[in-house]
Amino acid sequence: MAQLRIALAQTNPTVGDLSANADRLVAWTRDAAERGAHLVVFTEMFLTGYPVEDLVLRTSFVDAGIRTLEQVARRLAEEGLGELPVVAGYVDRAGLAPRVGQPKGAPLDAAALLYQGEVVARTAKHHLPNYGVFDEYRYFVRGDRLPIFRLHGVDVAVAVCEDLWQEGGPVSVVGQAGAGLLVVPNASPYEKEKDDVRLELCARRAREAGCALVYVNQVGGQDELVFDGDSIVVDGAGELVARAGQFREELLVVDLTGLPVSEAAPGAFPYDAGDGTTITVDRLVLSGEPVAPYPAEPAPVAERLDLHAEVYSALVLAVRDYVAKNGFRSVILGLSGGIDSALTATIAADAVGPDRVNVVLMPSRYSSEHSLTDAEELVRRQGVRSQVAPIADIVTAFEKEIELSGLAAENLQARVRGTILMGLSNQNGHLVLTTGNKSELATGYSTLYGDSAGGFAPIKDVPKTMVWELARWRNAHTCAGFLLEAERPIPENSISKEPSAELRPDQRDTDSLPPYEVLDRLLDDYVEKDMGSQELIAAGHDPELVTRVIRLVDLAEYKRRQYPPGPKITPKNFGRDRRLPITNRWRESTS
Amino acid sequence: MAQLRIALAQTNPTVGDLSANADRLVAWTRDAAERGAHLVVFTEMFLTGYPVEDLVLRTSFVDAGIRTLEQVARRLAEEGLGELPVVAGYVDRAGLAPRVGQPKGAPLDAAALLYQGEVVARTAKHHLPNYGVFDEYRYFVRGDRLPIFRLHGVDVAVAVCEDLWQEGGPVSVVGQAGAGLLVVPNASPYEKEKDDVRLELCARRAREAGCALVYVNQVGGQDELVFDGDSIVVDGAGELVARAGQFREELLVVDLTGLPVSEAAPGAFPYDAGDGTTITVDRLVLSGEPVAPYPAEPAPVAERLDLHAEVYSALVLAVRDYVAKNGFRSVILGLSGGIDSALTATIAADAVGPDRVNVVLMPSRYSSEHSLTDAEELVRRQGVRSQVAPIADIVTAFEKEIELSGLAAENLQARVRGTILMGLSNQNGHLVLTTGNKSELATGYSTLYGDSAGGFAPIKDVPKTMVWELARWRNAHTCAGFLLEAERPIPENSISKEPSAELRPDQRDTDSLPPYEVLDRLLDDYVEKDMGSQELIAAGHDPELVTRVIRLVDLAEYKRRQYPPGPKITPKNFGRDRRLPITNRWRESTS
Repeated sequence: MAQLRIALAQTNPTVGDLSANADRLVAWTRDAAERGAHLVVFTEMFLTGYPVEDLVLRTSFVDAGIRTLEQVARRLAEEGLGELPVVAGYVDRAGLAPRVGQPKGAPLDAAALLYQGEVVARTAKHHLPNYGVFDEYRYFVRGDRLPIFRLHGVDVAVAVCEDLWQEGGPVSVVGQAGAGLLVVPNASPYEKEKDDVRLELCARRAREAGCALVYVNQVGGQDELVFDGDSIVVDGAGELVARAGQFREELLVVDLTGLPVSEAAPGAFPYDAGDGTTITVDRLVLSGEPVAPYPAEPAPVAERLDLHAEVYSALVLAVRDYVAKNGFRSVILGLSGGIDSALTATIAADAVGPDRVNVVLMPSRYSSEHSLTDAEELVRRQGVRSQVAPIADIVTAFEKEIELSGLAAENLQARVRGTILMGLSNQNGHLVLTTGNKSELATGYSTLYGDSAGGFAPIKDVPKTMVWELARWRNAHTCAGFLLEAERPIPENSISKEPSAELRPDQRDTDSLPPYEVLDRLLDDYVEKDMGSQELIAAGHDPELVTRVIRLVDLAEYKRRQYPPGPKITPKNFGRDRRLPITNRWRESTS
Repeated sequence: MAQLRIALAQTNPTVGDLSANADRLVAWTRDAAERGAHLVVFTEMFLTGYPVEDLVLRTSFVDAGIRTLEQVARRLAEEGLGELPVVAGYVDRAGLAPRVGQPKGAPLDAAALLYQGEVVARTAKHHLPNYGVFDEYRYFVRGDRLPIFRLHGVDVAVAVCEDLWQEGGPVSVVGQAGAGLLVVPNASPYEKEKDDVRLELCARRAREAGCALVYVNQVGGQDELVFDGDSIVVDGAGELVARAGQFREELLVVDLTGLPVSEAAPGAFPYDAGDGTTITVDRLVLSGEPVAPYPAEPAPVAERLDLHAEVYSALVLAVRDYVAKNGFRSVILGLSGGIDSALTATIAADAVGPDRVNVVLMPSRYSSEHSLTDAEELVRRQGVRSQVAPIADIVTAFEKEIELSGLAAENLQARVRGTILMGLSNQNGHLVLTTGNKSELATGYSTLYGDSAGGFAPIKDVPKTMVWELARWRNAHTCAGFLLEAERPIPENSISKEPSAELRPDQRDTDSLPPYEVLDRLLDDYVEKDMGSQELIAAGHDPELVTRVIRLVDLAEYKRRQYPPGPKITPKNFGRDRRLPITNRWRESTS
């Protein structure tokens, strides 16, 4: 039996920033070496960032990534780190002849083993996910090689992300071929309460592979995706050994003991992958001799966040990374005194600091007294930067040129506000944050190019009822890394008052929508669970409401397509994960 | 040897409108019967329309489609059409147990044979395209059955669309099993000069299958896709027999002679599909006796349109269908006097008639004299409805509340115009047409929520140089179905004058962009061909320009994502067919 100290590099790469990602790989490997690790494992496509979408179809990009991989292998050796093996994800190519429908250049979602200045083994994801947020049949061809390298006597296999989620393939081959450890680089996006699913999966696959399993996940925001980390180590029985925190970078160092020592011969061996394909195992030996016994350090197991801490942390990280990675230094948003903009401002202040948050109060002829005072109270509590720009005279100027009434006149006010925010954004370089919530987005209760204007929409996947919950939670809690120091940052009146768009006298959301508790339950069943009207009624929803809400949701598809991106926290955030035709005459019948 | 008269129903279904599509199936079948056809073939997923995207994941929708199929089979018999066999596409389900990543309900892109009031055979697409505009791994599971039914002594096989484009699978099985005719329902979107590719493909596959081939394609606009029809019949040697027109509905009736008579036994027979899968051939007999010899009618071969007629016709059809299928009756757009809005107005007038086209002239303090006069001249020539809404006072009202200069002040003017158009759209129910061209969209030479506001963007996939070409073409030509009767509908001065956004004094497009002839060639190589900077320079593009334009294109990704949909006419229209991350630090180096 042997021991190994494994370092899990739960890191936050930036898409396309090959040199910064390479620098980070070297720095984290140095940390791992200083902590006595025998192996460092980075995340899926770490060198390129994940996902890179159509960049993967560009020859120049794939070439540059492969060059970077080879350079970083040499650089590790030059900097005295060559004896510490590193597993890291990148993009390779399969070298297949072109054919109709095959992604240009036949790219591979690959992982490499770097050792003594060289790339000594390569593998690539076998199972390509093409559901939810994933489009990998569009981008990759499947890998069919599985490296198992001997490290201090222990056979270590490498598989990539989705290969854990599907039956058959690399995990099944590891079970047949035998290994002492399976390491898996991942880029698995956050979704509410997904951590339980991941642990159960890792445990099951460890038992199937018959060895310990190291699951290393990306952390950070990338467009609509938030990666939460939550890296996991389980033993061969599927028992949890160690776990990294969520929503933070972490070098998780874990001592594994009782690992089997192998003397299997090196070479290439084909195996039936159990899914109609053959996978070739590449066995190689880095070092046959087990390390001398040493005292194992206790394995850290980070505590799980509760639901609200988890969601709120995801939103903060998403905003912070979207702002920073896109080169912005500050954000701007309209502050109405209502709960949506209050929560959005608070998330922004936690993400980038209140001195980088600009709010604009834009009262109209229909704004109530408390709109202004509640907004001012938030500014006072949080110390964000504010200005006031009344819209009445601008609205009047429009109304002199064109005749508008009813909904058209209401929308005009929202568009004037959107234009003010976009103007100040253009003038001062702030990123505009959009403040709409998921209930509005689902039902189309928003104005195209009005309140939906902006660059990023932090709460677009948060239903209104959860907006209130998160506001209450934030008033009672904070987390390490939040940049806002104020106590109870959100004015109580913004939380407790009745919601209104204030685009006409005495307007209330309930004039147009059912109460949010009722609406959100119905939306969850219709949107997340894809229930038809009969199923919705059978589940206890009011038939008339079902017809009305389904119609609202279906007709709002165009507005949703035009909405800015925002962090995904549920199975369906109206991004790539739910897409209807715009021209669509299908209407659910409740009869 | 036997004869058959085949009717190709080159039709325009509406996505989701099951009952209207069913009515159309019955009506066209009646026409085919009156013309003496022995078989009618409709297009891929005709009953549901194509593509239906996430609708296919809704149990209620798939159920309703299957019910509609069975009802329409009965209805054909009730209306005396039961003896005429009909092949039509719909959505079925495979009845597989759920698993991770498999589309909910395991849908099939299916086709059915309707005969004597019943659904007598079913098949489904075997090869699922997942490239370009297709996402079918997300939506379907693959079919593995191939019906071959005997009709008046001739064995007729049925395969679906992509099964023609890929090697192996159903066509290979038809070659092995033997058939007298292969009929193929399609929904193959238009792309410039794709008709040549299709004919070559049909000829090749006919030779491979060893029999005549009937290729029936959808026609009409569906969101970003335009289907052009161009249905084709080739004989077993791959020679063209008949061809339908482009961009119009047509019942193409073709007499095939010299078809082999078969006496193969009915039953189910497995075949190696040559792609690692097995396909089961279902042989059945409708009628064994050949029809009595009759004089064959000459087969119509429609003439091909030339490039400009083809592209312009695609744009007209796309606008007409987007307006009608979404329930609009009229459109509105801003008319600047420049060529982009002049061409867009003309396309719209050809699509829906000049009396349903509303134009708004929105002069600013920087508008030149000819802007107004050229716009007025177009109104006079075409008879579209016009109004004038000067923006200067509105811009002044904004500038009293917020301080803007430079680009921010330029964008403000565009946003005021966007807000006027959206207001009039809300007030009067017009669909806003956006007037930006592909060169602008590629380089980000537009204002978010300004000139990019709207519901449909007719020329978003047309490079500026082609905008001029199409304008000249339209001034010299018309086609059947265009609704504008004016001669030379576009004022010559709008075509010949130098392009300017007129957002500051004496502004010219060339202040910010290279000349369009140079730019469009570079964009074609960078966007359509995905060349890297080294390749672009090697192809003769100026290195400095390469750096500058690549940067513009890469940074404009966010604007493009927010742009309205518009008809796709090239391999990459910045829809689903080209998608970069927003957060993307990859920069091509020219060094």
